[in-house]
Amino acid sequence: MDDRDERLDPADPAALLPGGRPHDRWMRLALDEARAAAAEDEVPVGAVVVAGGRIIASAHNQREQLADPTAHAEMIALTQAAAALGSWRLEGCVLYVTLEPCPMCAGAILQARVPVVVWGAADPKAGAVESLYRLFDDPRLNHQVEHVGRVLADECGRILTEFFRGKRG
Amino acid sequence: MDDRDERLDPADPAALLPGGRPHDRWMRLALDEARAAAAEDEVPVGAVVVAGGRIIASAHNQREQLADPTAHAEMIALTQAAAALGSWRLEGCVLYVTLEPCPMCAGAILQARVPVVVWGAADPKAGAVESLYRLFDDPRLNHQVEHVGRVLADECGRILTEFFRGKRG
Repeated sequence: MDDRDERLDPADPAALLPGGRPHDRWMRLALDEARAAAAEDEVPVGAVVVAGGRIIASAHNQREQLADPTAHAEMIALTQAAAALGSWRLEGCVLYVTLEPCPMCAGAILQARVPVVVWGAADPKAGAVESLYRLFDDPRLNHQVEHVGRVLADECGRILTEFFRGKRG
Repeated sequence: MDDRDERLDPADPAALLPGGRPHDRWMRLALDEARAAAAEDEVPVGAVVVAGGRIIASAHNQREQLADPTAHAEMIALTQAAAALGSWRLEGCVLYVTLEPCPMCAGAILQARVPVVVWGAADPKAGAVESLYRLFDDPRLNHQVEHVGRVLADECGRILTEFFRGKRG
């Protein structure tokens, strides 16, 4: 396991994005959250926030259970992480999420000043990082986010495909 | 007071946008929330959600107090409204907010399937309805939002200008 993930330097987000596959470890924990969502009959998306080599937030989509339109995995994880740090500024944090963030979640990541996001499966219908918008790269906004996509993309996508196939079946 | 605001028809959002100034009444309540935010030393933005001619949610920005990056006025109001209706689908609702929504809030409004949004002051730095993005009009997304901007814009903008002037003074 590449241990560079452990040395978070908020001044140099790019240093958090080394070659190789150091992100798999954290994405697998986000996948565990996605599986927990599926078990609760929620669209299976999971997210974790890592700071200083530790998980400070871990959440999955709970829109149906909470009857809350804002209860995507990333949103809950961001709120948890802010509570853990006692600040809305999530400097030095990396957010891992199994699906490319939608405009709401990408916007929340920008609001939280998260320096780095790693995502799994692309979302051609609503993705706001590469697919429909590129919110993280917009120089007009007051923050930009380093991002790496398609980490364990097949596995992250398969859990969604199987969930929706089960719904139709 | 034009009473057409009272007759919400989710099947015809455009019917909620008559001529004249029927939106002022609700925007004044959103402005009361913005003033409450200023009194709490929060960036003064307020929001209300109206359904069936009644306020079902009323909130202001609480990012600092809650140390939560997601605690914009609109987000709290959407969560409140969903709790009031027992559903994440805010059909038949109109959201009033004193500032043009940012990408996070515009995205949340889309997630909640809110049919109509009325906003006050434009936000040239982060607005996602007209200024930087037009998220509500994007036919690629699975929902579109009718929107009316610049309702009581001077008043909505002035409270922000005065807040930031006080910060610098």
